[in-house]
Amino acid sequence: MYPRRVEDFIAKRLRGKDLRGLTPGVEYQLASGGKRLRPALVLWLAEALGAAPVRDGALPFALAVELLHNVFLIQDDIQDGDEYRRGQPALWRHMGVDVAINVADYLLAECYALIGETPGDADRRETLVRAFTETFRTTVEGQALDIGERGATDFDLDRYESLVVKKTGRYLALGLVGAALVAGRSEAEAHLAWEVGEHLGPAFQIRDDLLDLQGAKDRGGERGCDIREGKPSVLYAFALQGSILSAEEKNELTTIVATSRERTDDDAVDRAIELYHRAGAPEFAHGEAERRARLGVSAFAELPFVTTEIAAQFADIAEFIAGRSS
Amino acid sequence: MYPRRVEDFIAKRLRGKDLRGLTPGVEYQLASGGKRLRPALVLWLAEALGAAPVRDGALPFALAVELLHNVFLIQDDIQDGDEYRRGQPALWRHMGVDVAINVADYLLAECYALIGETPGDADRRETLVRAFTETFRTTVEGQALDIGERGATDFDLDRYESLVVKKTGRYLALGLVGAALVAGRSEAEAHLAWEVGEHLGPAFQIRDDLLDLQGAKDRGGERGCDIREGKPSVLYAFALQGSILSAEEKNELTTIVATSRERTDDDAVDRAIELYHRAGAPEFAHGEAERRARLGVSAFAELPFVTTEIAAQFADIAEFIAGRSS
Repeated sequence: MYPRRVEDFIAKRLRGKDLRGLTPGVEYQLASGGKRLRPALVLWLAEALGAAPVRDGALPFALAVELLHNVFLIQDDIQDGDEYRRGQPALWRHMGVDVAINVADYLLAECYALIGETPGDADRRETLVRAFTETFRTTVEGQALDIGERGATDFDLDRYESLVVKKTGRYLALGLVGAALVAGRSEAEAHLAWEVGEHLGPAFQIRDDLLDLQGAKDRGGERGCDIREGKPSVLYAFALQGSILSAEEKNELTTIVATSRERTDDDAVDRAIELYHRAGAPEFAHGEAERRARLGVSAFAELPFVTTEIAAQFADIAEFIAGRSS
Repeated sequence: MYPRRVEDFIAKRLRGKDLRGLTPGVEYQLASGGKRLRPALVLWLAEALGAAPVRDGALPFALAVELLHNVFLIQDDIQDGDEYRRGQPALWRHMGVDVAINVADYLLAECYALIGETPGDADRRETLVRAFTETFRTTVEGQALDIGERGATDFDLDRYESLVVKKTGRYLALGLVGAALVAGRSEAEAHLAWEVGEHLGPAFQIRDDLLDLQGAKDRGGERGCDIREGKPSVLYAFALQGSILSAEEKNELTTIVATSRERTDDDAVDRAIELYHRAGAPEFAHGEAERRARLGVSAFAELPFVTTEIAAQFADIAEFIAGRSS
């Protein structure tokens, strides 16, 4: 129901608009879909808190959250040189880096335009703009750390934590904070929801790191993409920091991870995965993901504006989201 | 005086901030300088209209205008594959496309954060956010047209006009509109200044197109970059549309322009320039640039909030800006 409404709103708002030079890219990107879980979450919470989505403007903000997600997907794929996304060529691969950069910019401008159309007074819209901008900035800082840590030989769990909270925490909670604001909660109250992201964001990212071991990532099924790209995963942090692997094995691992994607063959990837298993990293990561997910769901349940019923629904939604790629 | 104040504000605001992974890129980009003419224009007009820059928040908006300019420079260089900017390696060339994309995003987020710090009430800040977002979006649409028209064989002056107004018009007037808003003019009054950009933007772009014939562009001095990159310049539009060149010559010209940069040699560039001269394109462009500059300066003088004295100063400033790269 919610994804359908988002889809209709996107169609009305962006599809078929005459933006010569931009329309094909915008349409390609937005048609590539995903399940629209992020905006659906905004609509669900705004309604649960008593806001009618059109009247109270949850729809524009919901779409802004979805478009920001697409901006990051477009840019991530360029940055990582990933050629596939959701089973089809990434936008940059399909239409060129120049077009992809323009489409990302256009969608970002559209986010701010959408937020500016939220009904109500200017103060409310300003709190939404502030939350959005803060999320955009913090996520970019996290992305910069993620890139800066590629192949780092002294990576550890503390550095993973500070990276992953920035990269995923705000971003995950933005929809919750926005929904609370749209539904008329004060900025101080709504901001309590950031804490939910500080646990759930890492929980989802850790699961994503684990999925990469099975090649289940949304990148054409290749196994060990993170290892090939030198990404600072929780597995890498744990294996390096723990005391199970010998200095020689750690050295071997950092060499594989630091080697460029082009020069990393399947044997090297298999060896790195073997070392992760020897270090007990997947077991640790599974436990951590569960623990952080529980903390996130608890943080949500403790929000002053959330009833027991809403909290129970959120626990189900979080589990549902964790089980699939959005 | 104004550029100095901008420089101090940048230093206080952005330099040396602890943004691991972003600081080196942000510092490299902002140290590459330029003359800070855009923010100086904001401060000048805001003060001329009676706003003290710190009290009335002209400085944050002035810096936002400068940062947006840097965002576009960073992205343009990636999109065009330009390796030099202001006599040194472009950011993407120096630190990688991945870092450059992050730095551009970070600076863009910083623009919105800065506007959010403008003193006064939320309504005023909202008009600034709206003007900024509208400019960002329209400029990106223009950039998309610019890229979409690369090497177009049926390019003409109408298409040049719609491209160049989008790509340069809002962007040029943003500082004027923002300064008027910061100085307390109504949104309706301030928006009259967009018209100034609709003439001055094209005037400056046409001069830029002309400079490319002499290799004076800020790209390491290479002559005919636009021809090599297939850019839809006013010279190309005029030469194709006019009746001086034969069908054969036009065909020759479109072939040279449509050929990729790597496969365009100096002889081909010289031949294209020769054809431009034969078509009378540089003379036309010189006249057009003068005419549009006059229209822009007149449009400024007619703004209801502008005195004769301010208008005279603006005419000098516009001439000064046109004479150098910013």
